[in-house]
Amino acid sequence: MHDCEITGVDVRDVRFPTSRTLAGSDAMNEAPDYSAAYVILETDSDLTGHGMTFTIGRGTEIVVAAIHALAHLVRGRRIADVAADPRGFWRAVTGDSHLRWIGPEKGVIHLATAALVNAVWDLWAKAEGKPLWKLVVDMSPAQLVGCVDFRYMTDALTPEQAVEQLESRAAGKAQREAEIRREGFPAYATSVGWLGFTDEEVRRRCRAAVEEGWTHLKMKVGGDLDTDLRRASMIRREIGPERFLMMDANQVWEVDEAIAATRRLAEFEPWWMEEPTSPDDVLGHARIAREVAPIRIATGEHCHNRTMFKQLMQAGGLAVCQLDACRLGGVNEVLAVLLLAARFGIPVCPHAGGIGLSEYVQHLSLIDYISIGGELRDRVIEYIDELHEHFVAPAQIRNGRYVVPDTPGYSVEMLPESLEEYAFPDGAAWRASASGPVPAGAVRGR
Amino acid sequence: MHDCEITGVDVRDVRFPTSRTLAGSDAMNEAPDYSAAYVILETDSDLTGHGMTFTIGRGTEIVVAAIHALAHLVRGRRIADVAADPRGFWRAVTGDSHLRWIGPEKGVIHLATAALVNAVWDLWAKAEGKPLWKLVVDMSPAQLVGCVDFRYMTDALTPEQAVEQLESRAAGKAQREAEIRREGFPAYATSVGWLGFTDEEVRRRCRAAVEEGWTHLKMKVGGDLDTDLRRASMIRREIGPERFLMMDANQVWEVDEAIAATRRLAEFEPWWMEEPTSPDDVLGHARIAREVAPIRIATGEHCHNRTMFKQLMQAGGLAVCQLDACRLGGVNEVLAVLLLAARFGIPVCPHAGGIGLSEYVQHLSLIDYISIGGELRDRVIEYIDELHEHFVAPAQIRNGRYVVPDTPGYSVEMLPESLEEYAFPDGAAWRASASGPVPAGAVRGR
Repeated sequence: MHDCEITGVDVRDVRFPTSRTLAGSDAMNEAPDYSAAYVILETDSDLTGHGMTFTIGRGTEIVVAAIHALAHLVRGRRIADVAADPRGFWRAVTGDSHLRWIGPEKGVIHLATAALVNAVWDLWAKAEGKPLWKLVVDMSPAQLVGCVDFRYMTDALTPEQAVEQLESRAAGKAQREAEIRREGFPAYATSVGWLGFTDEEVRRRCRAAVEEGWTHLKMKVGGDLDTDLRRASMIRREIGPERFLMMDANQVWEVDEAIAATRRLAEFEPWWMEEPTSPDDVLGHARIAREVAPIRIATGEHCHNRTMFKQLMQAGGLAVCQLDACRLGGVNEVLAVLLLAARFGIPVCPHAGGIGLSEYVQHLSLIDYISIGGELRDRVIEYIDELHEHFVAPAQIRNGRYVVPDTPGYSVEMLPESLEEYAFPDGAAWRASASGPVPAGAVRGR
Repeated sequence: MHDCEITGVDVRDVRFPTSRTLAGSDAMNEAPDYSAAYVILETDSDLTGHGMTFTIGRGTEIVVAAIHALAHLVRGRRIADVAADPRGFWRAVTGDSHLRWIGPEKGVIHLATAALVNAVWDLWAKAEGKPLWKLVVDMSPAQLVGCVDFRYMTDALTPEQAVEQLESRAAGKAQREAEIRREGFPAYATSVGWLGFTDEEVRRRCRAAVEEGWTHLKMKVGGDLDTDLRRASMIRREIGPERFLMMDANQVWEVDEAIAATRRLAEFEPWWMEEPTSPDDVLGHARIAREVAPIRIATGEHCHNRTMFKQLMQAGGLAVCQLDACRLGGVNEVLAVLLLAARFGIPVCPHAGGIGLSEYVQHLSLIDYISIGGELRDRVIEYIDELHEHFVAPAQIRNGRYVVPDTPGYSVEMLPESLEEYAFPDGAAWRASASGPVPAGAVRGR
């Protein structure tokens, strides 16, 4: 390992004016500007660590302030020390009692934790010369479990049980790694059914997606129910009965509304219903799941920590785990949730879209498949064909599958010129009038 | 009503160096500096609105940044418009989709929401010339219910049910108001058993509290179990068998540890066990509650919104509701939780201590008793005799009971000289060396 010390924490506010096109519009988020609170860890070597948290515009500056507040917990650390005790490292970063108070382990301070923790993992992986997923799958069961803080988890999973679980899947690891390198990881497309799109645009995108070979497609629901039904019918006609159609309500329904709406939409055979109500409502999800079975409930992009995922799983409130790489507190806590999902036999289909999320989560699904869950059945990673051009080593899709990344690190390093152009509020993209034309390169694929 | 327009939002970072004395130390928070992200609403009249969120030191600047980000949602509003549609006002302040993303309704953005929303209510109460509690108890059932956003609540309580519930308790309102003005509201003392105190200091404080007439006292637990048992035994001896002893673990236990420890501590007859594990763990609380019955589980100071309280109540996870005036999103959401608690027949004993919390919650318990819950049985408000001297109209205790406040507003207006002296980092209290002597007036009562 190429050891180094973290000598500085550079934090950036980077925003892309996606609201000018209504890409990304859903029932809760009508006009997001995909953004990142972005971290560069400087070191005493030629390596730098890059991490980010995905945000949707205003408020990114608050996450930036939180990263500054946490920076002292990372500055001065040697990467070899992190590697020797990754659990202790995570506990230290989340354990500052003053900063914990304004969470705890949720909201802004946890989003900021994710950006920093992920930047440290990026640096660690680069120091080992491996892509992040490979760093983790090369760990022994004990080493992997040593990355996880089991606080508030032990009533569902102890460290000893986690080691056993990993050992039971150790046999096929090399074979799974070889297979997935060859085949790529299954993906699905969300870009077909944003709420802000016209019917024509939706139809056009459906046809293009089918042509590109996508088998799993997602639409947004949660507007007016009649409109949802009409659009679902249209999309189902376009994609045919054999492809999989997922639906995403983005939290807008009450528990009883979610049950009623899902039952009405059932005729279009949703492969899952996503975020039917408040992401905090474990018991609500459990009731919805019972009452709309066999339609599966998916949630997780707003599920803020392992304690919430633990309960959703204990209560039967989710059938598909859509963890987020930077809503959870970085790689360490993601590993906790992957272990829990395997314990409960729940497939993990990470949240992507936005910016940087595809780059992140391809690593997480690989870790899950090769080392933890050990299965591909019902696993797909979200994909949206937007904003990837800003990354040094962007996620790549071939035949509707993610290509296994090979570049060392965690893949969210942005191009220096993108960091500069989209810097908020002083980058070139923002100095132009907000109502002006979309800057070149801001949104692709339309 | 003295209508006015909100013309400016002034935000302050105010910190008191309480860590220099270890007052406030518990199993999770070893050295807090009681602090406030403090808001002053300027208007086109001679009225100003004051609100704050309680924090414990580092990170207050992050909440300040979040208040700045939310300020545009309040600036330019007339107080008569807020009064005409308080539910719509709250929905607007919590409904900015960009800012919602970095919560939603939790952590920093929700703490900031509370400071702002409470400042608006302070202004509204002043415009009516009434203390906050009186403004609310003078509302009709429909008006009070019109303050509440029922999103994510309707599977437990609908607006119609809430109106009915309030109407059923309307008859005794005048009598309860007269009675409580005469008698004051029952309180309990937390200052006896901070973890950082020596045995002598704890004994001295127990004796003083008994002499002052306190009947309900709280100690911190969650350190080493043998130490907890020894201290519990000592405190129980000091206060005698007839007084009520509450215990507070401040989230440090795993679910199974909490059950085991509570069973061991049972011999000292805890009146409740508070925050036994993660504040997010609804199902964990429910299991602990079942397994340690009849000892009651109390929680709420870190319970971040009505959706979490709803579930804790649905699951039987809490027997005492310790809502916090600025962890929830201000008065509107507190009213939601008071309505839920009444629905489930759960007593409300708000979280206080810190700074400003006693000033806030005295109003909330009065509203609960006079208009909503309608009962005093098992209701006590926390009280700590610290930092009240910084307020224009501080909470007052007589014979172990809160005196009903009469000054118009929500009682958290601080003295201008305190705002100046404790301004962070430039106030006089902070310009002195951090290891230097405690500034005059920083901590009382030792």
